Amino acid sequence: MQHMYERGLSRRDANYAAMTPIDLLARTADVYPDRLAIVHGLLRQTWGETYIRCRRLADSLVRLGVNRGDTVALLLPNIPAMIEAHFGIPMAGAVLNTLNTRLDVESIAFMLRHGEAKVLIIDTEYATIAKAVSEEFPELTIVTVADIDKGDLNLPAAVDYETLIAEGSPTFVPIPPEDEWNAIALNYTSGTTGEPKGVVYHHRGAYLNAVSNVLAWDMPRHSVYLWSLPLFHCNGWCFAWTLAERAGVNVCLRKFDVEAAFRLIIEEQVTHYCGAPIVQSALAYAPEELRTDLSHTISTMSGGAPPAQTLIAKLNSIGIQNTHVYGLTEVYGPASICASQESWKGEEAGRIAELNARQGVRYPLQSSVSVLDPHTMTPVPRDGKTMGEIMIRGNICMKGYLKSPEATDAVFQGGWFHSGDLAVVDPDGYIKIRDRSKDIIISGGENISSIEVEDALYRHDAVAMAAVIAVPDEKWGEVPCAFVEVRDGMYVSAEDLITHCRQYLAGFKIPKAIYFQRLPQTSTGKIKKQELRMLYGASSLEDAGGFAC
Amino acid sequence: MQHMYERGLSRRDANYAAMTPIDLLARTADVYPDRLAIVHGLLRQTWGETYIRCRRLADSLVRLGVNRGDTVALLLPNIPAMIEAHFGIPMAGAVLNTLNTRLDVESIAFMLRHGEAKVLIIDTEYATIAKAVSEEFPELTIVTVADIDKGDLNLPAAVDYETLIAEGSPTFVPIPPEDEWNAIALNYTSGTTGEPKGVVYHHRGAYLNAVSNVLAWDMPRHSVYLWSLPLFHCNGWCFAWTLAERAGVNVCLRKFDVEAAFRLIIEEQVTHYCGAPIVQSALAYAPEELRTDLSHTISTMSGGAPPAQTLIAKLNSIGIQNTHVYGLTEVYGPASICASQESWKGEEAGRIAELNARQGVRYPLQSSVSVLDPHTMTPVPRDGKTMGEIMIRGNICMKGYLKSPEATDAVFQGGWFHSGDLAVVDPDGYIKIRDRSKDIIISGGENISSIEVEDALYRHDAVAMAAVIAVPDEKWGEVPCAFVEVRDGMYVSAEDLITHCRQYLAGFKIPKAIYFQRLPQTSTGKIKKQELRMLYGASSLEDAGGFAC
Repeated sequence: MQHMYERGLSRRDANYAAMTPIDLLARTADVYPDRLAIVHGLLRQTWGETYIRCRRLADSLVRLGVNRGDTVALLLPNIPAMIEAHFGIPMAGAVLNTLNTRLDVESIAFMLRHGEAKVLIIDTEYATIAKAVSEEFPELTIVTVADIDKGDLNLPAAVDYETLIAEGSPTFVPIPPEDEWNAIALNYTSGTTGEPKGVVYHHRGAYLNAVSNVLAWDMPRHSVYLWSLPLFHCNGWCFAWTLAERAGVNVCLRKFDVEAAFRLIIEEQVTHYCGAPIVQSALAYAPEELRTDLSHTISTMSGGAPPAQTLIAKLNSIGIQNTHVYGLTEVYGPASICASQESWKGEEAGRIAELNARQGVRYPLQSSVSVLDPHTMTPVPRDGKTMGEIMIRGNICMKGYLKSPEATDAVFQGGWFHSGDLAVVDPDGYIKIRDRSKDIIISGGENISSIEVEDALYRHDAVAMAAVIAVPDEKWGEVPCAFVEVRDGMYVSAEDLITHCRQYLAGFKIPKAIYFQRLPQTSTGKIKKQELRMLYGASSLEDAGGFAC
Repeated sequence: MQHMYERGLSRRDANYAAMTPIDLLARTADVYPDRLAIVHGLLRQTWGETYIRCRRLADSLVRLGVNRGDTVALLLPNIPAMIEAHFGIPMAGAVLNTLNTRLDVESIAFMLRHGEAKVLIIDTEYATIAKAVSEEFPELTIVTVADIDKGDLNLPAAVDYETLIAEGSPTFVPIPPEDEWNAIALNYTSGTTGEPKGVVYHHRGAYLNAVSNVLAWDMPRHSVYLWSLPLFHCNGWCFAWTLAERAGVNVCLRKFDVEAAFRLIIEEQVTHYCGAPIVQSALAYAPEELRTDLSHTISTMSGGAPPAQTLIAKLNSIGIQNTHVYGLTEVYGPASICASQESWKGEEAGRIAELNARQGVRYPLQSSVSVLDPHTMTPVPRDGKTMGEIMIRGNICMKGYLKSPEATDAVFQGGWFHSGDLAVVDPDGYIKIRDRSKDIIISGGENISSIEVEDALYRHDAVAMAAVIAVPDEKWGEVPCAFVEVRDGMYVSAEDLITHCRQYLAGFKIPKAIYFQRLPQTSTGKIKKQELRMLYGASSLEDAGGFAC
């Protein structure tokens, strides 16, 4: 016989609903229909209007033949259509597949094929790609968004986005997921080696991370959010859905540039934005005249890499409060946050920046973010020294990799998502990344964290970017080698940097060579270390300005 | 063959965890171990300490023989043990059954029997009840909490709560629910007729409402919350769990009194509290000298009944911002909120109060709160006139009534929870309660909302409380009859009140009789109309000061 707390007490329509971010928009459109939802150029669109447009989009997609579980791909900058797609596509029961706008045709074609996209919504700026894929995928429906006047796209079969919106029914009833475990998004990770992997998000995780963002950031209702973070990157860390919950304002930014960013921050009284260190650095070191009218405080979340101490100080000095978060595509963006503590206030500035640059503690609605010994699967001691791998588990974790059961099983081994990032845990329980597993340098049997060496380099004012890789060494096995990009208008010699590093690093951790050059970056602002490694292999490198210690 | 978005992508330990409020405490204890969690008299307990105590409690309950799914009952005021129980009992896999401290022995005995409680945790103040139930339930383990010195409880078999805590292991690993649909709490509703019904809450709903409270109230991290609302009432609207998420401060209040409340508000810099209109009224009209040192702004949520316009104005004048919420035990406390709109600011004060006194819109994470025609199950028009029944559906809705499959099926008919409350919907989509189904007055074929008549009475300064019931009438079928409690030190005649009511009500809605007397209330501050109806039937009533129009 069933337990008394189960008997006659099963789930039913009245007390169980699949969690989905669609509901967050539906409520806000009901409660705050006249509040501003999207700002883009002259466009000022309310939440009521946004909901209607999303319903129209969903209806049109269904009419185009999009079925439940079909993939709709997007190649769009941070424009209104991109935000609408985050709701309109799931409302059609379909799966949202945002593509990195900086990818080449081959990569895009791979993803369209692998993800079996039925529709591609593409900005007319990417005409070359649109033409190429329309030839390669004759069955693919192409929808073009004419956000700016780039009239050279002549695709007779393409459908105009605004026509799609106009023809869809404003009273379309959104198709709810049959199960909150249904896919809502497909995000390809740009792995440094091998083919990209398709990370599948579920409605449950998207809903919970949308809310977790609010809790993590203590984000007030009606916050004004600048889209400096690409929406194609982990669905903008789920902030499109968060903004709907908050009835906030999405301030669009088609292309990041400092002048536009500061103009919007001031004009729209932006309260929040996210960005990689490169965005933070651009804002922090922007010409002062861009922010003469900036008088309010702004909150930012930075991710991708820990911001340098000097950068944090610089941001603070112009009224930007930084919170550092850490995550990966597989966990919907941020999985941990360097939650600040009142007790830190007494520390000196440098120490505060150091404390704030850590990866921190688990995100509010994530079950666990731990540093485990990957062999024993037990937590490392909280000694700030013992390295282990960052592992994550909980409801804000992907379903797995599309069509890659082996890769999925491997990355979820032992009941945890294996991040591939190596870290230590400080005595206060805060996680501090040491390295990617593959970036660790093993020198004379000792582990050297490339990040630790980079941190030391970043403490020098003239260093704009730094990357440290392992290079083979006859005596030590491996030794660290640094690549440095110097800040515009400044100068530093390799000797100066070596001397500088000695203040912070043990002798065996000092780079054995320093090269000055522009550093290759991924579209999300990460330095492509793999490229540097290949470059190092090329004989021309030393000629290019390298300095061997 | 499975769809590509399902194949090899099923739930596993790494990406799926049963949602439970236990996790909210675990995270806060990890991240903010040294922050203040509970204030009670001289006690100042941190979140780290609280988590340890809850784990000790859970361990001891398991040692006492409490198994997964067993019921642990509580008869406690708003003291630390009550907050700890909200975590410690679920951590043992058991179900939390808070009992109303104002109930008589018979009711308590009914609930212990019906809920099959294995353990009763009881405050020594309720010695009479403890003795009676210990005789009636020899198998029941009684745990006594000696919060205040009331040394007359001599139960040799009883276990002391602090001994239980001391003997439990601080490293006990909380037992997670096997399924988030598992019961976390059992709350008896004090129906006005028939036996109490046992409302069963699930972990999923408790978790989501804990978060929904934060979103609804825009409640900042580290808020300081005064426990003026009984924790035995819908688990304090789930705020025990909310406070854990916020790493806030629980300011205990063993017994509500205005002096203690204001002292704590000032000393602890309380930022938030909840309460029925009776609590709000007590604070608003308290002697001014109690709040001479009050200089900060406080947010309050009021529920139970819409606060009168004059009460809202009075609260505002002393720095208390009121938000009106509506809900029932079956939906974990608040299900709707009168979310304020910027556009209301331009209205005159009376109109603002009127707008703010409505039941409003659905709570952030609730799927739907609608007013439906109970026959056709279609929404009523947004005309502010057409009455329907408030119906609720979503994830913050009980599993059902314990051991009452028929009552459960009935209340969930048609896929909605039927609240039994009659309401209209204003053109802006805000719900306004008109009456309980059973309180509606049908006079000459016209519906009269008892609440509308009460609202008119409340607009008179001298009216502290008012209740309107239907009484039989030969000509009209039913007519409204009012019971009024006059504010201390004030006077008003029935004739005056009738004249007053004519300003606001159509002739047929004017009470045909007004009685001045103390009004009987439930332990949660609701007026017992059923008692008034019985009283009206008694012949002695007219002698007691009634005035027939």
